[in-house]
This record gives sequence, structure tokens and C-alpha cells, in this order.
Amino acid sequence: MTYYQKLELAITESNSLLCVGLDPVLEKLPEHLQKNPDGIKIFCKEIIYSTLSYSVAYKPNIAFFEAMGSKGWEILVDILYEIPKHKIVIADAKVGDIGNSSDQYAKTFFETYDFDAVTVAPYMGFDSVQPFLKNSKKGVYLLALTSNPGSANFQRQVLSSGKKLYEQVIETSLEWNQENLGYVVGATHPKELADIRQHIGEMPLLIPGIGAQGGDLEATVKAGINENNSGCLINVGRDIIYSSSGKDYAEKAEKKANDYQEKINSFRK
Amino acid sequence: MTYYQKLELAITESNSLLCVGLDPVLEKLPEHLQKNPDGIKIFCKEIIYSTLSYSVAYKPNIAFFEAMGSKGWEILVDILYEIPKHKIVIADAKVGDIGNSSDQYAKTFFETYDFDAVTVAPYMGFDSVQPFLKNSKKGVYLLALTSNPGSANFQRQVLSSGKKLYEQVIETSLEWNQENLGYVVGATHPKELADIRQHIGEMPLLIPGIGAQGGDLEATVKAGINENNSGCLINVGRDIIYSSSGKDYAEKAEKKANDYQEKINSFRK
Repeated sequence: MTYYQKLELAITESNSLLCVGLDPVLEKLPEHLQKNPDGIKIFCKEIIYSTLSYSVAYKPNIAFFEAMGSKGWEILVDILYEIPKHKIVIADAKVGDIGNSSDQYAKTFFETYDFDAVTVAPYMGFDSVQPFLKNSKKGVYLLALTSNPGSANFQRQVLSSGKKLYEQVIETSLEWNQENLGYVVGATHPKELADIRQHIGEMPLLIPGIGAQGGDLEATVKAGINENNSGCLINVGRDIIYSSSGKDYAEKAEKKANDYQEKINSFRK
Repeated sequence: MTYYQKLELAITESNSLLCVGLDPVLEKLPEHLQKNPDGIKIFCKEIIYSTLSYSVAYKPNIAFFEAMGSKGWEILVDILYEIPKHKIVIADAKVGDIGNSSDQYAKTFFETYDFDAVTVAPYMGFDSVQPFLKNSKKGVYLLALTSNPGSANFQRQVLSSGKKLYEQVIETSLEWNQENLGYVVGATHPKELADIRQHIGEMPLLIPGIGAQGGDLEATVKAGINENNSGCLINVGRDIIYSSSGKDYAEKAEKKANDYQEKINSFRK
């Protein structure tokens, strides 16, 4: 089964496009939890249990786990263990290095940790991305037009061809696809999102920027889905996982995830 | 002491521009060492002991440690512990994410692991780089023109202004500098390296691509050094650390490092 096939099956079975972003920080843990990696572990597990019925995917941001040292990687393994195999688990790591180093990152995320997909930065070009694409069972979300303000600095630079850099990244990388390539496009750019969807056909999109970053949900879903009413993951992190700082945090996260699932589905064609 | 000051002091005290790249893989360990993380730990420590007299910096590539899971981070801590404080230690991680995630990476590399500097990818723009620049004691090497073949895909794209993307990355980021910014430029591009040195004045360069990747040492040193006969680190990884697959690996690495130091110094003005 290729990554595309697993993704489509997961979306159908879960009846959801919601991806829950796991970006845990000690300072934002609910008050009654210990402010240490074990507290983070309990927190993430409870968030997963309470959102499983409404989500199709989970996206731990590796930055937040690495910041805890080797203990962070240990608890990440424990946390991933709670996610059923039919869901999609994405390592948000924005990696990309010369070929022999990218080989090691691919080994890390796809073999050592068995993620379904990883986010990859395009700046270093083909040989930095290819090690992730080699295994068609595993997905690659290449950064195209990211959700943050800094996306204006380089991604929107106009090339001599008239194309913008992010458009060139997409055009060039379309030739690399092995039935496992997709793109990261921020919900903060709904117009460009619609143009990109036109350009890439049915390929998958990973769309951050909803919730804390302020993207418009209706515009995003309508622009992001493909002809099959599918093909995109809408990531929501902080707005779900920090719904409450009290003992009811999991309950509140469940309600938020349920709301997001319903709203997103109501905007699908 | 800013990063610039620490770097210059280290270069002077070590009388060296040599940075030893630590990219250890199990398959390439000397035959008598265990093919596990403990074998890697012994290997890296011996490489450090045997090259300390000839090098000014060490650059572990994070990909190679992450691939060993949480154990990889544990042995990295043990390995870093062997490097004297006056040397420069660079986390080659090519990180870069939205602001609150980059904050976490900065915490990881500068606080949790106390690296002196980190490599950062520019694609996501200012707010992805700024968290690393905030602490002027710590260095940031922004990817400009990397040593790998894929550098041709996007970094050399010509913008409508006539500048190439990597030139624009440098021009834009020069405004962000807090006395701790430098650039990664591959030894595989000696002409562009000389142009970049002209453009950035005395700022530091981290130059990979010598050895296994085939860059020309003389051209690289002459193009890379600044007016003070300093300001660049010449990274050599595989060509030093895998000098021998026998029990004499540390001795052979020592000889290689000594050779590199002497050759590099002979090409300084």
C-alpha cells in the first residue's frame, strides 16, 4: 500500500480531515500535571485518547520533544504507541540535508520511529529530498508556502521566469514524485492554496495555520480538498491541545476536536 | 563574549581552521568496535582525542545521532563532554520552523546541549531564524550555497532582480545579524565562495565539501578566509574519521587532521 492509499483509506475510515498537532511545552501543561517529561507524556496520551474519534492524523512537532533531551525521544515512542495503526502519524521535523545525512533522517523517522510521513525542507534540492521519497509506503510533505510571516522573505520571491519560488519548488518536485509526495501550504494563504490545488491535482496537502495562527477554516477546507473531497489534512495544534488548563483539559480537547471535525466536514463538498 | 569573539579566540588559540565533522554510522566503524551506540561513542571519543591538537571545531551531524533513537542523544552528550570548552562545537541540524517551534530548537541546541552554534535552513524566513539569533553568545550558520548537487535546484534560481536565491538569502539576512550570524557555503563552489566573502566582510563561514565531496582545499581556503586571515571553518568529516577501518583508526585520523591543519595554514595569507 502506497502512502497515498493509506492516507485515503484513513480519511475515509475516520470520516475526518483533522490532524492534531502535538506541540507540548511544560509551561502550558494543565496545572495539576507534573511539569516534567512524564507530565508531557500523560498529557499527550490523554489528548490522543480524547481526540481519536474525530481525527485522522497526529503530527508531533519534533522540536518540542528534542528540547527535553533523550528523555523527549523516549516519551515520544511511548506516545506514538497509543495511536492506532490505521491513523496517519507525521513527524513534523522540516529536515533536509546532503544525501548521506538525509538517508539517516529517513532511517530515523521511517525505521527507528515508524512514522507514516515526515515534513521536509526543499532548500537543499533533489538529493536532500530523495532519500525520503525512496519508500513509496512513506509520505513526504515538502514545505511549499508555510503559514508563518517569514514565508514572505524567500518563498514569495519572484524568479526571472515570473514564477514565485514556492511555485518553482512545486513544479520541480512534481517530477520527483513516487506516489508519496505532498506539500505543506499554510491556511494563512487561502488564495495561493486554491491555485496550488489546481496545479497539483489530487496530491495530498498538509495545512497548518488554523487556530492559534488565525487561518480561515471554511476558505481553507474549500481550497484545500481535491476532486475526491479529500486529499488534505487540516492541522490544529494549540487550539485543541490547550483548550483548558484545568483537570477537564481532555474533555475540552475532545469537544474542540469534535467541533473541528464537524465544521471541516460541513465545508467539504 | 559574542560568538564572533569566541570563534576568533578559538581559531587563534588552536592555530587552526579545521572543523572535524562527526557523522558516525555503524557500518563504517572500525572492525574491532561493537556495531552499536556504545561502539559509536568509543569511536567518536577516540577521534576527538586524536584530533584535538589540530582542530578548532567539531560538528556532529544530528541526523547520525537521531538515527540511533534516544540512545543516540545520550551518547552525544557523553561525546560532547570530551571537547574542551575553548573549542567550537556546532550542531549540524539544518533546522528552521515557525517561531514557537524554532524557539524550542534553540532551547534544545543552545540550552539542553550547550552547543556554540547551529546550522539553520533559511526557507521559512525571518521568524524561523530569529530565535537562534537572539542570544549573541551563540552562533547561527545559515545555509546559503550548500555543497551538494541539489544546491542547483533552488539555491541557484535567478530572481527577477537578477540576483540568485542564495545571494538574496545573504542580502536579506545581513539585516538580521546580532554579531552571531555566519553562512554555510560549500567548498564545491570556489568562485561563488570568493564572491560571498567579498560581500559579507569579516563574517564567519562554515565550509563543508572538502574530502569525500571533492572540494579543492587551496582554492577554498584562499576564497574563504577574511582580511584577518581567519573567519572560516573548513569542515572535513569522512576523510578524517574513516582514515582506517583497523585498530589504528585514531592514529590515522590524527595524521590526517595534522595534514589538513598544516595544508590549510599554508594556504592562509
